[in-house]
Amino acid sequence: MGERNSEYRYDILQQRWVIIASERGKRPQEFAAIRENPESHFCPFCPGNEDKTPPEIAAIREHGSRLNGPGWQVRVVPNKFPALRVEGMPERDAEGIYDHLNGVGAHEVVIETPNHKAPLSRRDIDDIALMLRIYRDRLNDLMRDMRLKYVLIFKNWGMAAGASLTHPHSQIIATAVTPQTVALELEACRQHHQVKERCLICDIIKQEIASRERLVSIDDRFVAFCPYASRFPFEVMIAPRFHHHDYSRTTDQDLRGLASVLRDVLARYREALDDPPFNYILRTSPNVNVHPRRAHYWESIEFDFHWHIELFPRLTRIAGFEWGSGFYINPTPPEDAAKYLRSIAT
Amino acid sequence: MGERNSEYRYDILQQRWVIIASERGKRPQEFAAIRENPESHFCPFCPGNEDKTPPEIAAIREHGSRLNGPGWQVRVVPNKFPALRVEGMPERDAEGIYDHLNGVGAHEVVIETPNHKAPLSRRDIDDIALMLRIYRDRLNDLMRDMRLKYVLIFKNWGMAAGASLTHPHSQIIATAVTPQTVALELEACRQHHQVKERCLICDIIKQEIASRERLVSIDDRFVAFCPYASRFPFEVMIAPRFHHHDYSRTTDQDLRGLASVLRDVLARYREALDDPPFNYILRTSPNVNVHPRRAHYWESIEFDFHWHIELFPRLTRIAGFEWGSGFYINPTPPEDAAKYLRSIAT
Repeated sequence: MGERNSEYRYDILQQRWVIIASERGKRPQEFAAIRENPESHFCPFCPGNEDKTPPEIAAIREHGSRLNGPGWQVRVVPNKFPALRVEGMPERDAEGIYDHLNGVGAHEVVIETPNHKAPLSRRDIDDIALMLRIYRDRLNDLMRDMRLKYVLIFKNWGMAAGASLTHPHSQIIATAVTPQTVALELEACRQHHQVKERCLICDIIKQEIASRERLVSIDDRFVAFCPYASRFPFEVMIAPRFHHHDYSRTTDQDLRGLASVLRDVLARYREALDDPPFNYILRTSPNVNVHPRRAHYWESIEFDFHWHIELFPRLTRIAGFEWGSGFYINPTPPEDAAKYLRSIAT
Repeated sequence: MGERNSEYRYDILQQRWVIIASERGKRPQEFAAIRENPESHFCPFCPGNEDKTPPEIAAIREHGSRLNGPGWQVRVVPNKFPALRVEGMPERDAEGIYDHLNGVGAHEVVIETPNHKAPLSRRDIDDIALMLRIYRDRLNDLMRDMRLKYVLIFKNWGMAAGASLTHPHSQIIATAVTPQTVALELEACRQHHQVKERCLICDIIKQEIASRERLVSIDDRFVAFCPYASRFPFEVMIAPRFHHHDYSRTTDQDLRGLASVLRDVLARYREALDDPPFNYILRTSPNVNVHPRRAHYWESIEFDFHWHIELFPRLTRIAGFEWGSGFYINPTPPEDAAKYLRSIAT
């Protein structure tokens, strides 16, 4: 078994796909090592070390600078230990009552800045906008691949949030299956739209802006608020106030607006919560170019869905139990969290 | 908002309930403190300190010993900082498009042993069986309360797994709503049974025993194996080989058998993984005494469901992202994990 590549396996009880990535660290001894927290002094993401990563997929570079050399502002490379591989076609198969699918997909790293010590909350808005632009461009590129059903873009900041390197970076995982949370959200949005002919997320945003009690940050194009049923203390949702299902169509101007709101929320986290570890996830529509058999899902996707960012600091220790139970206890009412975040001078 | 009690809130996008527990630690400063890892020298769970917990709900005691005094072997007390309260009736209400429900339920702590330094994997089988018996008895008692839809019994062992006190203990949370993972599993089991007139979990167990490649431990009544689509390295499922939906009906003799398998798996964890932090969750049927309107769920529950324990060590750092995406990458194929666990001499 140890020789085979990664694969997706279906959890028949929990109705979700899991990636079994046998090429990433696997021996028990290696797990013990992880707990030791080895902070290396060499950084493969710093300028000058471009040859220590796989060759770049995309970059925003100074005019005249050389591919895979210094002179970049944002750089995208394949993950050196990818959970998924771009080669091959997705082949679905059964193993008795179980189902699996070979690990076709993409796993990329976005090196957000050449500056090793530039956390997002302290970067220029223009630099953050470049990062958001490369998210958009990778999304567009990956969605041309009809094998890929979903493109997950996310960031882990800080060891406690799952980052293994300290140089600011994000990750992109493009999958041949639809993640469960995406499927659940789509289904909720679709049912709402079917009955009410309105977008569920537009309705949520309208109510949040009217009540104001969970608002964190707002301008004419974007809004950030603590969700009504926040699972985590200080969880924040950032969404465009205009309806759009697909992040890949966002204009440069709107990306600059998004950069400004994102930085504002992260600066509030930094001041309020002592520079906490955090995660964010971009929730955009599934690959609109793919038309699976369940076409009703896709027909109305541009009306149903509304892209947004889910952002949360890692504060509570209560952990593994929630993974197993799906049951979350949040000790901080989102109204209190939002009030506190609003009170921070930025 | 800060004055109100706990409540359940419905996450309209993710279709799950969250508990907003405003009485537990909530100020940002307190979160910073959690990271400092304050290990107190006083233990409220040790014998002699019974007056430092709320009065006991149940205990297994030496004959003649005094209530709320020493002489117990297992002791159950209300959680001092409960996420839910036993008083009142569940009242459902709306807040615009959102839904909530007052925080009716129970939150109890099972003090598993008087011995502060007796991890489960080193305790006598008879002592573990007593703990499992009190789980069963609390389940029976709580299920008499028609307000409670589900009783979650779980254990967090080690700081990284969410335990805030080192004295061995488990927790019980009884809720007025059904947790999402339970609902998902029930639905999967129900659909399988509807089509095949067989229990899905019986079928899984049958296949695991036939293939043997993911088996960890087995005797004539119980089996432990690494699930086919394990989300976490070394995840284990323990289940009775005989079909039963409801843990609360387990005989004393079977509880002793379960204790033996549970200890065997935990001893393998200890040797293989350097005494890792871990979590387990008992998955039993919802409260069979409650008959909600969706009666078709309950009519066939004794055929559909099959109680089991989900157990996993906390090894991987990759964390927050999975919470948000519902997407798990497991670096250790369950076949490798099972083979390694089997190889440990116990």
